[in-house]
Amino acid sequence: MASSTAFSTLTLHGSSLSPKTRGAVPLSDHVCSCSNLQFKQSIYCKPSSLSAQIPFHLGVNDGKRLDWQTNGGLVSNHGVKCRALDVANSPPGLAGTKFQLDDVIEAQQFDRETLSAIFAVAREMEMIEKNSTGSQLLKGYLMATLFYEPSTRTRLSFESAMKRLGGEVLTTENAREFSSAAKGETLEDSIRTVEGYSDIIVMRHFESGAAKRAAATANIPIINAGDGPGQHPTQALLDVYTIDREIGKLDGIKVGLVGDLAYGRTVRSLAYLLAKYHDVKIYFVSPDVVKMKDDIKDYLTSNGVEWEESADLMDVASKCDVVYQTRIQRERFGERTDLYEEARGKYIVDKNVLNVMQKHAVVMHPLPRLDEITVEVDQDPRAAYFRQAKNGLYIRMALLKLLLLGW
Amino acid sequence: MASSTAFSTLTLHGSSLSPKTRGAVPLSDHVCSCSNLQFKQSIYCKPSSLSAQIPFHLGVNDGKRLDWQTNGGLVSNHGVKCRALDVANSPPGLAGTKFQLDDVIEAQQFDRETLSAIFAVAREMEMIEKNSTGSQLLKGYLMATLFYEPSTRTRLSFESAMKRLGGEVLTTENAREFSSAAKGETLEDSIRTVEGYSDIIVMRHFESGAAKRAAATANIPIINAGDGPGQHPTQALLDVYTIDREIGKLDGIKVGLVGDLAYGRTVRSLAYLLAKYHDVKIYFVSPDVVKMKDDIKDYLTSNGVEWEESADLMDVASKCDVVYQTRIQRERFGERTDLYEEARGKYIVDKNVLNVMQKHAVVMHPLPRLDEITVEVDQDPRAAYFRQAKNGLYIRMALLKLLLLGW
Amino acid sequence: MASSTAFSTLTLHGSSLSPKTRGAVPLSDHVCSCSNLQFKQSIYCKPSSLSAQIPFHLGVNDGKRLDWQTNGGLVSNHGVKCRALDVANSPPGLAGTKFQLDDVIEAQQFDRETLSAIFAVAREMEMIEKNSTGSQLLKGYLMATLFYEPSTRTRLSFESAMKRLGGEVLTTENAREFSSAAKGETLEDSIRTVEGYSDIIVMRHFESGAAKRAAATANIPIINAGDGPGQHPTQALLDVYTIDREIGKLDGIKVGLVGDLAYGRTVRSLAYLLAKYHDVKIYFVSPDVVKMKDDIKDYLTSNGVEWEESADLMDVASKCDVVYQTRIQRERFGERTDLYEEARGKYIVDKNVLNVMQKHAVVMHPLPRLDEITVEVDQDPRAAYFRQAKNGLYIRMALLKLLLLGW
Repeated sequence: MASSTAFSTLTLHGSSLSPKTRGAVPLSDHVCSCSNLQFKQSIYCKPSSLSAQIPFHLGVNDGKRLDWQTNGGLVSNHGVKCRALDVANSPPGLAGTKFQLDDVIEAQQFDRETLSAIFAVAREMEMIEKNSTGSQLLKGYLMATLFYEPSTRTRLSFESAMKRLGGEVLTTENAREFSSAAKGETLEDSIRTVEGYSDIIVMRHFESGAAKRAAATANIPIINAGDGPGQHPTQALLDVYTIDREIGKLDGIKVGLVGDLAYGRTVRSLAYLLAKYHDVKIYFVSPDVVKMKDDIKDYLTSNGVEWEESADLMDVASKCDVVYQTRIQRERFGERTDLYEEARGKYIVDKNVLNVMQKHAVVMHPLPRLDEITVEVDQDPRAAYFRQAKNGLYIRMALLKLLLLGW
Repeated sequence: MASSTAFSTLTLHGSSLSPKTRGAVPLSDHVCSCSNLQFKQSIYCKPSSLSAQIPFHLGVNDGKRLDWQTNGGLVSNHGVKCRALDVANSPPGLAGTKFQLDDVIEAQQFDRETLSAIFAVAREMEMIEKNSTGSQLLKGYLMATLFYEPSTRTRLSFESAMKRLGGEVLTTENAREFSSAAKGETLEDSIRTVEGYSDIIVMRHFESGAAKRAAATANIPIINAGDGPGQHPTQALLDVYTIDREIGKLDGIKVGLVGDLAYGRTVRSLAYLLAKYHDVKIYFVSPDVVKMKDDIKDYLTSNGVEWEESADLMDVASKCDVVYQTRIQRERFGERTDLYEEARGKYIVDKNVLNVMQKHAVVMHPLPRLDEITVEVDQDPRAAYFRQAKNGLYIRMALLKLLLLGW
Repeated sequence: MASSTAFSTLTLHGSSLSPKTRGAVPLSDHVCSCSNLQFKQSIYCKPSSLSAQIPFHLGVNDGKRLDWQTNGGLVSNHGVKCRALDVANSPPGLAGTKFQLDDVIEAQQFDRETLSAIFAVAREMEMIEKNSTGSQLLKGYLMATLFYEPSTRTRLSFESAMKRLGGEVLTTENAREFSSAAKGETLEDSIRTVEGYSDIIVMRHFESGAAKRAAATANIPIINAGDGPGQHPTQALLDVYTIDREIGKLDGIKVGLVGDLAYGRTVRSLAYLLAKYHDVKIYFVSPDVVKMKDDIKDYLTSNGVEWEESADLMDVASKCDVVYQTRIQRERFGERTDLYEEARGKYIVDKNVLNVMQKHAVVMHPLPRLDEITVEVDQDPRAAYFRQAKNGLYIRMALLKLLLLGW
């Protein structure tokens, strides 16, 4: 499933461009006399606030129409708001060539350089979350969480991210019962309505491809928070970010993927992303009924990633930097609870596994876990799964910042 | 269904009255040294902050008791908070005689002059929403959305309106399962409880008349967001506002009401409001089974509004300023899906209809739509229905501002 | 059910300690040049902002590990945030010895002195709610309402409390369907995840003891908003606070507990708390099938509280300072609706009861009520039940303030 989202490069010449702070009349007191304001307030720009003399190329997503008007103003389809390209505030070392992020739809849309830049912003977010009284970076922005199936964990993570940055949230916990959807309204019409109420939409849907359809319709950014058996890109990003944070590198790492490798959306996306790094070695450890499928194996091989299957968790654990455990999903086994019970008990991460793991190695898990990691493991500093969940917050803060304010 | 809500006129003499900014100790930094503060902060007034020397008459709704105390303080039943009558901030041309808005219960409560004044505020709101980083006009105010039946679209619109003005929201998506209501608590008791937690209540209920009962009980403003087969006044307001914005006038317009005219709450309310304007001509275009009922026809006739029924959508479309399409509601036909299918296919707005429409005319629809307007119409600039949905945001922002801060 | 939560005393020597305003870099404009800022902004402290020279003892809850690091920093298990002990802002008369409040789990955890101190803060909250444009005291703080069973009234009260203090809220109206819980995740794992997204968790659960388990796991404060047949401590606190506010004292009062005394969590908790005061006399007035149980009677006797049972509501009402009416819960009677109907009709508070009550006495009720208090009583100033509900807001504001900022 190749990415159909193309990004062009944004180059800037001349003076620094801060459209969100120019031309627009400040209507609140938040941008005024206070001297220790460290983050610029986000202010919607009016089309006329962009000078025509500044030449630049815009990142254009296939689903968007961003027109360059005769007066030099940048307007979206409906001419309502444009998004900031706030280069002045770029983190050090990231100035210059940038990638305009329009939507977050699938893990494959990110290349190595973009991942690295996102992770740098996530680190900043970590500092903000830990040290401040709450950032006001996204003050005045409104995020709609449009969840067509419930996922409390993911929803709370996004909503916390938005609120930690001073933004506001509109919530629909079960949009499937959205009266309009129930009456037969298309997803496209729902999106057109909700985009009138908000500045960014985080969408969970039960159909693969729904996020891409939403992004093609919307004039505001869409984040895919999971679309059925399709993608869950922010989970994949937080997984790679966690490996980077815990191990300190992504090139040259050894990762053991354990458990349900056939149906787990998580491990499949992770495998895709790991293929972007050098000298990665992946071990697959899973019961026969839920083995990793050939498409991923072929993808890894063709991208030069070494992999091998193993039935010996202890051996793999002793070699790996990361033991990535997953939950065997009962719902995949239907009536065959006997097969389920056999599969789920086979590879458990417990004290014995910890004992053979290297000192710097970590145990990860996308959560929720049942007993595939025993509770005794929690106390070990190498148990990284709750830190991993927390990293989801930082990654989502970073993405919200990037989609709404730019780099 | 005549309005039982009477408004008396509020006249002000002497100095400008800004009770919400006088006497009360400012507790936050939002009203302080910042010079470009364009909107006054909303501050709850204390009774003693209203001088007894200023004579004025209060708008009194039948359900309210606003007592004028011996010390000159304005207090509601429970003596807790009074509402601002902030005349100093009136939009130009609206100073002087004003109507105090206490609640929004039914479309008929608004006369032509009030509608015009509300629309002027809605225009201001449009500017605020498009140009600012988020207004702080309603900062410190709390709106409760008490929905006894789900209506995600309406709820999100109100919540967005409140948050776009800096206010906060308490949400109950399905108040019917409100534990207390389930246990047999009266609506009145629920309202008395919720008004203790909030400054304004937006209520959706399954029973006609529920909003009026709530307003009679509450000491804070109530907005009817639909009460069963009864009223949905903010929808009616946004429809008229949209016609005004799109066509530029309301007197002398020709409107074609198409589709389900028998059961559609929307078109019935719209007909009531259009009767307030001069030289309006209305065309009814609908399948026989869902024809406009006699009560509305009689009302229009007695109010001097010309109307006619037609079976020729092309002819009507060619004459009208507004083609207002509606969805035929399947649930009205019970087992007779044959009748439903016949009715819904009869009058479709498509490219052919667009081709005969005048250049300045528009297509409206309360949404959600199924296929009574074809998707090809969406691209035409005369397709006004998504702009119409967005106008709902501005109307609701205006009403929240007026109910909480006054004119 | 004795309290297992032990509080040690916090003593402070030397300079005033305001960890939340020291050392941390201010990241927003809210603490800057504005001169009439009356409440200090809450700022997460960094460990290094606490000077090692200041010796003090920490309140330690059995479930918490608060470690004193070598660099003098106070950190919780995960080393992320510490809670303020903001003594400089103490209400007058409360400086000096303080109790560190870590969690609110059960009514019994509060002694008389702590109750009195909490009530003083609740009074401050009452002033804030009535007189200001919304406090910013908890700005930057995020509360998660984790409700495993719905309780709209309690949830809205907590959420209003948080928002009235400038804080933000993450809501889960029905956490039982929390995808993770549904998949078999333990409460402990859910808590570890949610604490990563928020600063305080308000939890409602269907199992007795769940709140205590959550508190033992979490590194952020937990408030029990009801755990099954167990405790609902904030209801008990607001009841006692209401008596104090309405009658002006707690020692020496006479209280009539009326209605369902067998199953009502409320009256049982209230009895426990009243036992902490001197010369209290309690009358039990209830149908035979729902009489007060022996454990409470024994507890009162052993704590020197005089009590008697009576079948004569008029006699009791004439003697009492407080008539505390409760709803007979139909669900307790199963098929025996005849018994239910007999029980519920037996003791009604109506005009006749009011007529014999003393002028200073009040009628209380935890709400929702059916007809055990007639509507005619509502107009009497002695009807205190809606003020009681409102007091719940002040108590919850006080607890949120105390748990997040300290005294």
